[in-house]
Amino acid sequence: MSEVFVPEFPATEAPTMEWDAWGVGESRRELSPQIKSLLQQALGVSEEQSPPPTEANTTLRESTLGTSLIESLEDLLGTDNVRTDAATRLRHAGGKSTPDLLRRRSTGEQDAPDAVLLPGTHDEVQALLQLCAAEGIAVVPFGGGTSVVGGVDPTRGRFGSVVAIDLRRLNALVSLDPMSGIATLQAGATGPQAEQLLGEHGLSLGHFPQSFQFATIGGFAATRSSGQASAGYGRFDDMVESLRVATPSGTIDLGRGPASAAGPDLRELFVGSEGTLGIITEVGLRVHPVPERTLYQAWSFPDFETGAAALRAAAQSGSAPTVMRLSDEAETGLNLALSGNIGGDSPASGCLAITTFEGTDAHAQARYDETTALLAAAGGKALGEAPAEAWEHGRFDAPYLRDALLNAGAIVETLETATTWSNLANLKSSVTTALTESLAAQGTPAIVMCHISHTYPTGASLYFTVACAQAADPLSQWMAAKRAAGDAIVAAGGTITHHHAVGRDHRPWMESEVGELGARVLRAVKDAIDPSGILNPGKLIP
Amino acid sequence: MSEVFVPEFPATEAPTMEWDAWGVGESRRELSPQIKSLLQQALGVSEEQSPPPTEANTTLRESTLGTSLIESLEDLLGTDNVRTDAATRLRHAGGKSTPDLLRRRSTGEQDAPDAVLLPGTHDEVQALLQLCAAEGIAVVPFGGGTSVVGGVDPTRGRFGSVVAIDLRRLNALVSLDPMSGIATLQAGATGPQAEQLLGEHGLSLGHFPQSFQFATIGGFAATRSSGQASAGYGRFDDMVESLRVATPSGTIDLGRGPASAAGPDLRELFVGSEGTLGIITEVGLRVHPVPERTLYQAWSFPDFETGAAALRAAAQSGSAPTVMRLSDEAETGLNLALSGNIGGDSPASGCLAITTFEGTDAHAQARYDETTALLAAAGGKALGEAPAEAWEHGRFDAPYLRDALLNAGAIVETLETATTWSNLANLKSSVTTALTESLAAQGTPAIVMCHISHTYPTGASLYFTVACAQAADPLSQWMAAKRAAGDAIVAAGGTITHHHAVGRDHRPWMESEVGELGARVLRAVKDAIDPSGILNPGKLIP
Repeated sequence: MSEVFVPEFPATEAPTMEWDAWGVGESRRELSPQIKSLLQQALGVSEEQSPPPTEANTTLRESTLGTSLIESLEDLLGTDNVRTDAATRLRHAGGKSTPDLLRRRSTGEQDAPDAVLLPGTHDEVQALLQLCAAEGIAVVPFGGGTSVVGGVDPTRGRFGSVVAIDLRRLNALVSLDPMSGIATLQAGATGPQAEQLLGEHGLSLGHFPQSFQFATIGGFAATRSSGQASAGYGRFDDMVESLRVATPSGTIDLGRGPASAAGPDLRELFVGSEGTLGIITEVGLRVHPVPERTLYQAWSFPDFETGAAALRAAAQSGSAPTVMRLSDEAETGLNLALSGNIGGDSPASGCLAITTFEGTDAHAQARYDETTALLAAAGGKALGEAPAEAWEHGRFDAPYLRDALLNAGAIVETLETATTWSNLANLKSSVTTALTESLAAQGTPAIVMCHISHTYPTGASLYFTVACAQAADPLSQWMAAKRAAGDAIVAAGGTITHHHAVGRDHRPWMESEVGELGARVLRAVKDAIDPSGILNPGKLIP
Repeated sequence: MSEVFVPEFPATEAPTMEWDAWGVGESRRELSPQIKSLLQQALGVSEEQSPPPTEANTTLRESTLGTSLIESLEDLLGTDNVRTDAATRLRHAGGKSTPDLLRRRSTGEQDAPDAVLLPGTHDEVQALLQLCAAEGIAVVPFGGGTSVVGGVDPTRGRFGSVVAIDLRRLNALVSLDPMSGIATLQAGATGPQAEQLLGEHGLSLGHFPQSFQFATIGGFAATRSSGQASAGYGRFDDMVESLRVATPSGTIDLGRGPASAAGPDLRELFVGSEGTLGIITEVGLRVHPVPERTLYQAWSFPDFETGAAALRAAAQSGSAPTVMRLSDEAETGLNLALSGNIGGDSPASGCLAITTFEGTDAHAQARYDETTALLAAAGGKALGEAPAEAWEHGRFDAPYLRDALLNAGAIVETLETATTWSNLANLKSSVTTALTESLAAQGTPAIVMCHISHTYPTGASLYFTVACAQAADPLSQWMAAKRAAGDAIVAAGGTITHHHAVGRDHRPWMESEVGELGARVLRAVKDAIDPSGILNPGKLIP
């Protein structure tokens, strides 16, 4: 039926991110004089913070795992694959939200998993879950560690110990069906590893979220990730054809060809389950040929409302571009200021939109022609390729910059939601007001920027970036603003998360998302699969 | 947020189908001399069957509902909306598969629901479920009664009585959000009622399964229906933005805008739940403007393999037509023979494909151009518009013809599945062999025809039509062939149903579809929502 490859693991093992910052050491950014000046003028940020504790002078909570348990784990996985050293534990201490990074900067005791386990096969993952269920040890499935919602926090729940199961050794292309355009990848393959493995066969997944460089296939599925090319290739959940999941109650294989009417789609229970129902070990994914051609076009719209209406026309035409984004006036203005483009060819006001078109020559050109006509008719002014190519070039950079801004005494954090087109302006205004008022009331007036990052025929996502000076207790400061934003999102009819998932941080809003009965259904499913409750306690399920 | 209409119920109430045939009385078909001659020559069918029992001389099982319960129901719904007369009960005695119709032709006692209930509001549905749960009465949700898998059989399970809850009075357009392209319809609206309600606002759903004339919005959602225009507008499950469901444990509202990463998508549990988890009363649906333009093109391919490869190229291009279908050699030949076209302009051999393209002028033309180039390059010969228009004109006719064929002593039944493109030829051959061998072994050699009715980037559906003479016991005869086909589908890696759902007839294969653990999850969800098990017993859940 399909050509099957069982390749060696890729030669390059995925890099582990720093314990207290995005990326790896060499990639830390310096702030430009322009940014430093802007921080001072706009936000009143001028003082460098005292440098965060280094790894060497961190106090780490002692591992609670006893010797006999460690030996059992070593018998199962081999000595090398059971790690209790401080460096490895710290690198699995949580995700990369601003609250996570602020906690790492604390001089108090750091929490971390009691051990980090590195299984090499699905059966080892399955055996680990059965061992942990029998021994009463909480389990945090760990992919790239890029969660910004507390999804990989080492939460113990009612248990005395917690382990992280890191899937990095499960990074192979299991099988490839080029005729059907389906590749089955192991869950621990990172974005670049997946593209490398597929690229050898002339194929691509086309999933490029901002976390692409570090996040994994299993993490994309477990969190309903959405990449920047979602208008063209779909969200990650759209790409999932099949799943293999290890659970405390055994293995489940789901996926019934391209479509099925055989009852509820149980894939949709495990996609988005965030490690609370099982550990995804393999994902069958829809892939496509590496595009023959990419066309770029940037646009200027006089205001956000006009731009949003134009994007809506394109999304509803059934011929959306591969990438389609629109920055609001604040974000457009700030980006222009930082890139030094004010006064050049680019407009100094209005809203910038980016479109790209991929596929065969004929397909890219047909979509380009249809979309370009629609956007121009809706009031857009074409700006040419350069701003779109510049956006693509820098699209994974923002998280690195955030670390430097934190060091400089600023908070720059993001949050996101989605709603129908008719409710978009209301939701944008509600969330902007909530963030602005919360931070102003705390004495740290904020800049709140927004863009549409993902479009659908019926609506779009809104991605907010907030910048302000750090208060005396920046963690409480941000948590108050985040709470106000979450309440505003729910009150204004948005979803609490369009693509960052729920984890620990969005859990307070889950019941309003699915209702009391929906929450009861989730708990019933959890009880049936994970009766002892070891899987990622304190996350997702209300 | 959105413009809200609360219209009167449409003036025309949906027609109720005959108890023993598809459609309403006046629509019964006579067989043409060509068909009669073909039946005799190809299948050896020559004798008319004795006419089936009329409604007047049918023996109907007595209703088991006591007077006090009837009074409680009448208090809740009004006297007119609690029906125990024989005519109404017979018209809710089950669906419209060939086994269903053969059972109606039996002279033995007919089973039927003990009462037919006609609630007029969501709250009445909710109250009915709570009453039935308290009293221990099985409930069959009933839309258009078009099931061909035993989905609306009056199965009592462990209960003494069963009622059908017919949703025909819930047929309004609840709200319309034209900017977002979302219409919320009550579940009992039929296909034509929905199109009429939407058409008044220049909108269309674009969902046209063969059951369109009678089936309902709630039934489409509960069974994961797929319409003939699915390549363009998606399956019905793709169109569902939100759901309101009445359950014995209360009401659940699901749907979080165009997309969400807030955990498992619980909509996907209730879509396809076939009345076993609750009764869907409202569905928020993605709609689109009535197309400005429709372009038609029919194609001839030298053989099925070449045609399938051509459809695959179009489906994988990302620019699929609105409708795209391919008949195999047997189906193409039979249709040509019946339409008397042999020797005319149409080719006497090969495989016929149909494509249509809808949308704005620009969109329809762009898709037409891209697809036409792909299909021609893949070996297709364009046949012009006429065969495609003829197909569209007759696309709801086949079930009417089946009744006449049954009367003439033939069995003509259909079944369907789906798989990946790489497995399509294998699945087609396996199922064809299973059906051919089973019926030949029973002394009734069959004609087995097939077409691709729905295409996806990763695969396609296969829709089989089987024709043979009736044996002495035609019910057992067909059930044996159906069992052989179902086993062959599962063994060859297909799904047991692409768009007919599971019901009673496909339930034996459900566990192989979702696995032992998947079955356990379904039962856990059922237990949480419907602890007394009143909802559609004996259907779907293994």
